[in-house]
Amino acid sequence: MSVTPHLFIPGPTNIPDAVRMAMNVPMIDMRSGEYPKLTLPIFEDLKKVFKMKDGRVFIFPSSGTGAWESAIQNTLKPGDKVLMSRFGQFSLLWVDMAERLGLKVELCDEEWGTGVPLEKYADILAKDKAHEIKAVFATHNETATGVTSDIAGVRKALDAAKHPALLMVDGVSSVGSLDMRMGEWGVDCCVSGSQKGFMLPTGLGILAVSQKALDANKANGGMPRCFLAWEDHIKTNDLGYFPYTPATQLLQGLRCSLDLIFAEGLENVFARHHRLADTVSAILAPEGIDSAQIVKTAYYRYNTSLGVGLNKVAGRVFRIGHLGSLDEFMVGGVLFAVEMTMKDCGVPVKFGSGTGAAAEYFNKTSTKAAELPKAKAA
Amino acid sequence: MSVTPHLFIPGPTNIPDAVRMAMNVPMIDMRSGEYPKLTLPIFEDLKKVFKMKDGRVFIFPSSGTGAWESAIQNTLKPGDKVLMSRFGQFSLLWVDMAERLGLKVELCDEEWGTGVPLEKYADILAKDKAHEIKAVFATHNETATGVTSDIAGVRKALDAAKHPALLMVDGVSSVGSLDMRMGEWGVDCCVSGSQKGFMLPTGLGILAVSQKALDANKANGGMPRCFLAWEDHIKTNDLGYFPYTPATQLLQGLRCSLDLIFAEGLENVFARHHRLADTVSAILAPEGIDSAQIVKTAYYRYNTSLGVGLNKVAGRVFRIGHLGSLDEFMVGGVLFAVEMTMKDCGVPVKFGSGTGAAAEYFNKTSTKAAELPKAKAA
Amino acid sequence: MSVTPHLFIPGPTNIPDAVRMAMNVPMIDMRSGEYPKLTLPIFEDLKKVFKMKDGRVFIFPSSGTGAWESAIQNTLKPGDKVLMSRFGQFSLLWVDMAERLGLKVELCDEEWGTGVPLEKYADILAKDKAHEIKAVFATHNETATGVTSDIAGVRKALDAAKHPALLMVDGVSSVGSLDMRMGEWGVDCCVSGSQKGFMLPTGLGILAVSQKALDANKANGGMPRCFLAWEDHIKTNDLGYFPYTPATQLLQGLRCSLDLIFAEGLENVFARHHRLADTVSAILAPEGIDSAQIVKTAYYRYNTSLGVGLNKVAGRVFRIGHLGSLDEFMVGGVLFAVEMTMKDCGVPVKFGSGTGAAAEYFNKTSTKAAELPKAKAA
Amino acid sequence: MSVTPHLFIPGPTNIPDAVRMAMNVPMIDMRSGEYPKLTLPIFEDLKKVFKMKDGRVFIFPSSGTGAWESAIQNTLKPGDKVLMSRFGQFSLLWVDMAERLGLKVELCDEEWGTGVPLEKYADILAKDKAHEIKAVFATHNETATGVTSDIAGVRKALDAAKHPALLMVDGVSSVGSLDMRMGEWGVDCCVSGSQKGFMLPTGLGILAVSQKALDANKANGGMPRCFLAWEDHIKTNDLGYFPYTPATQLLQGLRCSLDLIFAEGLENVFARHHRLADTVSAILAPEGIDSAQIVKTAYYRYNTSLGVGLNKVAGRVFRIGHLGSLDEFMVGGVLFAVEMTMKDCGVPVKFGSGTGAAAEYFNKTSTKAAELPKAKAA
Repeated sequence: MSVTPHLFIPGPTNIPDAVRMAMNVPMIDMRSGEYPKLTLPIFEDLKKVFKMKDGRVFIFPSSGTGAWESAIQNTLKPGDKVLMSRFGQFSLLWVDMAERLGLKVELCDEEWGTGVPLEKYADILAKDKAHEIKAVFATHNETATGVTSDIAGVRKALDAAKHPALLMVDGVSSVGSLDMRMGEWGVDCCVSGSQKGFMLPTGLGILAVSQKALDANKANGGMPRCFLAWEDHIKTNDLGYFPYTPATQLLQGLRCSLDLIFAEGLENVFARHHRLADTVSAILAPEGIDSAQIVKTAYYRYNTSLGVGLNKVAGRVFRIGHLGSLDEFMVGGVLFAVEMTMKDCGVPVKFGSGTGAAAEYFNKTSTKAAELPKAKAA
Repeated sequence: MSVTPHLFIPGPTNIPDAVRMAMNVPMIDMRSGEYPKLTLPIFEDLKKVFKMKDGRVFIFPSSGTGAWESAIQNTLKPGDKVLMSRFGQFSLLWVDMAERLGLKVELCDEEWGTGVPLEKYADILAKDKAHEIKAVFATHNETATGVTSDIAGVRKALDAAKHPALLMVDGVSSVGSLDMRMGEWGVDCCVSGSQKGFMLPTGLGILAVSQKALDANKANGGMPRCFLAWEDHIKTNDLGYFPYTPATQLLQGLRCSLDLIFAEGLENVFARHHRLADTVSAILAPEGIDSAQIVKTAYYRYNTSLGVGLNKVAGRVFRIGHLGSLDEFMVGGVLFAVEMTMKDCGVPVKFGSGTGAAAEYFNKTSTKAAELPKAKAA
Repeated sequence: MSVTPHLFIPGPTNIPDAVRMAMNVPMIDMRSGEYPKLTLPIFEDLKKVFKMKDGRVFIFPSSGTGAWESAIQNTLKPGDKVLMSRFGQFSLLWVDMAERLGLKVELCDEEWGTGVPLEKYADILAKDKAHEIKAVFATHNETATGVTSDIAGVRKALDAAKHPALLMVDGVSSVGSLDMRMGEWGVDCCVSGSQKGFMLPTGLGILAVSQKALDANKANGGMPRCFLAWEDHIKTNDLGYFPYTPATQLLQGLRCSLDLIFAEGLENVFARHHRLADTVSAILAPEGIDSAQIVKTAYYRYNTSLGVGLNKVAGRVFRIGHLGSLDEFMVGGVLFAVEMTMKDCGVPVKFGSGTGAAAEYFNKTSTKAAELPKAKAA
Repeated sequence: MSVTPHLFIPGPTNIPDAVRMAMNVPMIDMRSGEYPKLTLPIFEDLKKVFKMKDGRVFIFPSSGTGAWESAIQNTLKPGDKVLMSRFGQFSLLWVDMAERLGLKVELCDEEWGTGVPLEKYADILAKDKAHEIKAVFATHNETATGVTSDIAGVRKALDAAKHPALLMVDGVSSVGSLDMRMGEWGVDCCVSGSQKGFMLPTGLGILAVSQKALDANKANGGMPRCFLAWEDHIKTNDLGYFPYTPATQLLQGLRCSLDLIFAEGLENVFARHHRLADTVSAILAPEGIDSAQIVKTAYYRYNTSLGVGLNKVAGRVFRIGHLGSLDEFMVGGVLFAVEMTMKDCGVPVKFGSGTGAAAEYFNKTSTKAAELPKAKAA
């Protein structure tokens, strides 16, 4: 069929047409005198998205996983103790990485569907008088379950314990969709990627780091590394260049997506995400229904890509991604497709119940009335 | 906002991504030895879409209006008598053109919302023993009202009267979406354009003509003309070239859209259009509601382009185009947007009633069950 | 091979990447309230390119041939006498059109390779005391031979004879590349198209008309017509709309190409064309060498599209188009390819003679010295 | 100006139009059942390009630098002794990486402009009876100087010494342009990237590894790692998936560039590169001329991107990249631009000498004669 599948996975997200256009360009020379005119403003604009007080942003030609690794490699040493929690596939994977890179993980293993356990964190930090814990990790938005954690709360726990540990946040599926206040919350490393709120293809690992993190990097030297090492980027980034070939087309796309975000207004982007249901909905399939079958049916019968349940919730959960470039129409369309899909899979759905409820809600909460041009004259 | 408005006007229609890609190419040389490899198969494949028995297809760098004019200019002489009917904006405009080009129009003026009046046509043709009527005109699908006329019925009326008049059909919003059987129905000129069922931008006037129409062209000479004259195209088309610069990118796009149509299967394309409600729905706004306000609200509040009511039904009717590249999701989305829009405009809509009814219908009539891969294994 | 053929035909010309991007967009609604924001400034900006004093510009979804026809149909009546000259394939075709549309052509048949015969025109006009001649035609740039005619000279001839005839100019391959001063030269209809100086695909017939031409249209009614009739466009254009579906993607591309032209500066664009050898070079192949073989060899052996000789000069002439989006590099490249090609075809070429001479000339006349950033610091 | 700068840096290289089209697509679901239809054939086809006998290919969302790091991290342990040589910026950087990752490098420091010192390597390997050297490194094509090293010769040295060390090759600027025979030459890790011979933007680190390398990985465990770890990819790749979000658009582009390579014929691609001067020419500027000024002038005055001299040869050398998607025309164009540029910078160039010599050579060695269609008939 000629219609491209409708994409509602929790990332990579839909690429706006303007962004696609911005990337569909011939290759340019990343060492020319014109290149910094592209790159330097991007570094500055990213700081606004992360709401940083100090520090800098690194842009790696990698995925978010690379940015996770860069955050760890550049600030911590093998054997360092860190505090982490696990309550979904992506927090799980970050723990796995930390362990494989040689960190000693003090782990809070939580129910999937919960978030960062603030009280436990507070307890553990309070007890760590010797400050053995070098960093505290938090997944801002657990993409596997759609649960958002309270980063300001983690900061409070650190402050209450007067604990000097670095605060490391996974913002891959939150930055650009949910409010991220690195400066206010004292986040030291915030990991993000191009393929979620930035509405781009995968390929940029975006890592925002505080001055405190930069100091830690200098002080302790981190782990053996090269590709994702900060020091090489620091040497060249301020002139608008990179230590090795950058992903130019993605940077051109990022320029465009930042323009779109600022044109809409960062706070408006957050409000839109909130109104359209934040970033991802994880839906528990009724007993006896295989959620993978729901995802498959939506794809092959209704041309709609949903997210599968991952790991512990495979077969039990399916996910609707609604982050990035999205409007009411698209939410209505996916609910329409999901109603039909669930019916096909044996779930007793009343047609129109989901779309009707959403229409009711969107209609009540629409903020666009004032934009109607000539409404009075009509 | 970063989301492109959702397009549900009755043409130009949504351009499939593959077609957009096919047109996003550098300019090529329309006199090179390679060019006919692009053009000759297009001429052949178009014949399949029109289901022609004989004759040929002309491709003009024009809109459908140009193809209308070409059909008249090349087969009729000023002062010729023709039989036409008028029941919507597009049949109205074709009548206007015929009169301006000097034809004597025997006009059946019908209620908007009806179609070609078969019985009247039959009567008039039966009475025209002298065969003064040189051509009979019929609008296959009146885009302004969504009404499809019975072309086979017009042929029957002609045959019953043993009338030799040419049969001229406006297929602009039908060809590629509704079944067009030129050969079987004895259509002599079928006018189409790139921007409806062919899922392309405006810019190609596609005119399919029977051998009988070609003979008439030779016999009577037609009207003064040059740009849209058949004779120049006939001289060059068979070698794969055109008498003046062709719209190459659109031809490259047409190659792709024909591939998409044949890959889906021409009959499957028709079945899909039928299931998703043919080509265009014209909806009468309730008394006291300005349909133009509905269209405006849908656009500015819900990012959705609907069709306005034209001419006689301006302010009373709005239209949802659903021809070309379309699936269930998109129909669900537009109904979702229309429900909210109508509520905003004072129509007492029950949210979920339209989407619910559509989901019910689509779910029952889905033909894709068998395509579910590994359905048994799941 | 993965390299797209290098295009040096005298139109359609190379499409700048920015223009390709601007056209690679989803379809939008040509009746929305936003549409005039695209179209109205285009009408205004085109007037600047044509350097008009009064009148208006029409944009048809047609090729330049359609705009030729529109100019004739809307200002002249069948049987009207007109003065024309013929000295190449495109002036020849316009004469052919005029005759087929019923005009009585007083024809100056000139050697191919010459231009508009100013003295003959002056004589004929002076003798036409009765003002039977209703319009004088001139081909500004004869694309077949590369010869530019003196339009100001034709105006002088008209003024000297105090002749009220309309001045009709074919600017298809000149507007946007050579200076066109409609206001100063008193041009009444100037025909252009999207695919030359405007650096777009074929598909827009652009016709600029003076107030005098508009008055003539009203006064005499012109010929039977509809598709290319001015009156329907006049009714809708001023609001930013069109009487039938416009070629939206091409208009979006035209927006971009106008931006490129104004960014470079209209006069700079002319200067660049002049320096790079105006618009088209027609090269006479040496005796005994088939110029078509040269074109074929360039294409198949060196991936380079040249223009063939047309009609009277077929087999004798080949053409290098250098209008539109072009720089020194490209001219060097095509000369390089042509040297090799001519050698292959038996012409005793000294390799490096053409490229060397061009490098010498370009190097001497380069105007970009001042733009070198930090040249002093280096 | 509307013309995009002509790109002749030694990577990223020019992206063919077909590849740009293939990447200009909406995002698709990398977990759908259709995804492996894209990915699995890519893995297979890459093996053909590398001419592997056994082993597998990894595709990382990284640059070539990431693939360098992956090769080291997955096969060697900190403290392992390796044999390397340094004769240009890229061999230098790989040595730097090896040292930073904790390897003990036995280094052959060579003149820039030479290649891998085969005799020294043979000596060192012969003396290493204890087989302390775990891996031998070789840069196939040193992008900074344009020098190609003899990988078969390195294999010979290893075999002569009956040495079991792994053979690690940097093929970033060679694979897809120069012949790489991993199987025949016994290469164990061959590093490549998307942005050179594969004619894509930066963003894919492509690492081909032999079965011996896979065995070494299992046996010794390598270094701490996660993002670029082979084991996670091995688990998912064979089903057509990746352990984290892949760079889908680049994979779609890679599909297209592989198609282009195979359509031209891998050996024909190599022959074309050889005829057009391999992959990169490093040109020594005459005494007293700053090569950086040449690069700047070419860019700002002639719209042409050349490569600067790097590190030791900064200011002394400039580079012309001619790898990837390239033909004779483009080589002619760049020589034309370079002649003018050098003259501007004070080098006494005879215009036409470079282009003339190239035309002479290309004309003599053209292989396309037979492709001329209908040459006999002409």
